Amino acid sequence: MVIIGERINSTRKRIQEAVLKGDAELIREEVRKQVAAGADILDVNGGVAGREAELLCWLVGIVQEVTDVPLCLDSADPVALRRALPLCRKPAMINSITDEQARFDAVLPLVLEFRARVIALCMSESAPPAGADARVATATRLIERLTTAGVPPGDIYVDPCVFPISTGPEHGPAVLDSVTRIRSLYPDVHVSAGVSNVSFGLPGRKLVNEVFLMMLLSRGLDAAIIDPCDEGLVARVKAAEALAGRDEFCQEFLVAFRGGMMDFLKK
Amino acid sequence: MVIIGERINSTRKRIQEAVLKGDAELIREEVRKQVAAGADILDVNGGVAGREAELLCWLVGIVQEVTDVPLCLDSADPVALRRALPLCRKPAMINSITDEQARFDAVLPLVLEFRARVIALCMSESAPPAGADARVATATRLIERLTTAGVPPGDIYVDPCVFPISTGPEHGPAVLDSVTRIRSLYPDVHVSAGVSNVSFGLPGRKLVNEVFLMMLLSRGLDAAIIDPCDEGLVARVKAAEALAGRDEFCQEFLVAFRGGMMDFLKK
Repeated sequence: MVIIGERINSTRKRIQEAVLKGDAELIREEVRKQVAAGADILDVNGGVAGREAELLCWLVGIVQEVTDVPLCLDSADPVALRRALPLCRKPAMINSITDEQARFDAVLPLVLEFRARVIALCMSESAPPAGADARVATATRLIERLTTAGVPPGDIYVDPCVFPISTGPEHGPAVLDSVTRIRSLYPDVHVSAGVSNVSFGLPGRKLVNEVFLMMLLSRGLDAAIIDPCDEGLVARVKAAEALAGRDEFCQEFLVAFRGGMMDFLKK
Repeated sequence: MVIIGERINSTRKRIQEAVLKGDAELIREEVRKQVAAGADILDVNGGVAGREAELLCWLVGIVQEVTDVPLCLDSADPVALRRALPLCRKPAMINSITDEQARFDAVLPLVLEFRARVIALCMSESAPPAGADARVATATRLIERLTTAGVPPGDIYVDPCVFPISTGPEHGPAVLDSVTRIRSLYPDVHVSAGVSNVSFGLPGRKLVNEVFLMMLLSRGLDAAIIDPCDEGLVARVKAAEALAGRDEFCQEFLVAFRGGMMDFLKK
């Protein structure tokens, strides 16, 4: 699974404070920790109202002082994306494009110009996706529009759009079923998810998110925005990969175990 | 999910020692702990070579001194089952019947006579099940033979027969896919699993078993033989039920949380 490290997100209080007072060292430390823990990509979110473009660019500069790991620019603002993308030394990932016309038209040229990978969130102009069928339909439309425009299928990461299960028992199965179907229809396209929405409004959110990620991995999800420094979660991801048949004879699981990744189990 | 408490199993060293020296109080304590933790059924295994019938009967007597929770008689020996079944005050569960002719013929009359629930393990006369197709075929045969004989579908708990993933990457997906298909073909039949086989030969077994159970729950598994005293596992089962759409508006999850079941998360 591609681990997109979630920690440098200005909607989190600690990061927002650091960003607003220019505490570069705190950001660098978050980078070092996530890279050491095995993050494949680092999500970078500068989402402070009115200053997003400026702060996103500042973050991109600071992060690249200490790592060459590719970045995932986490913004719905095409202006912020256009300013930050040229600063990225490696091809970036954009989080995200949707099937809403204005957003699609604004983000697509950036994806093409910067050969970016892109998270294709299953949101369309109409109501939010109401079930697995609506998610698969929107994913199909997004994939067809993106590939027709020239985006390679392997650069597309479909996000089925996770809803809180506290608002209805149908939301978990709808996402799970849509992942099975999208994976089966489009084997060359990746499937990712912003898992943490699922537990909105509930206590014990970390545990709920973790269990949902395990279920999604068994359906073929192959990327997620998570905390790579959560050793319990990452160990379970390794186990899940083996259980889902994507780690022949459990070699990667065993390497992780021998490397000490699961020493916390002995505590 | 129906939790079948696994702790009173004479293949475990601590239990075997207690059984062999007649330490009834240790057994009673295992009963109390599992019932307090929410076990719906208690598995009872007296599997000491040559003395199984005698020890199984002794265990059934001791367990029923402290609880009325139904028992799951865990034995492949029809003689032991026939002696222990009349001692059970509540209709028991039998673990297990298979599609092997001799075992099927020996266990079926017991299921009928004692109106027992029965775990139908997907093992047939020929080679062990090699994939999802073989499991679904054996499950189909077992369900048809049992229901034709008069066993109500709701008393059948199909076990897809879990293989160790250390022996091949196909074994996890084969079981997961077979559960999806069996659940879809036979909505009135239950699906259970002896989950712990999956991690045979690996380190970190508890973690691997737990992740596999979460995946199975998302496919419709609704019973499992687990340790109800493992608070991390049981909390995840509650989360999984909500995520799989079987806990409307997360009411049971919230009751469990408020009741302190997830206090370990705060540690």
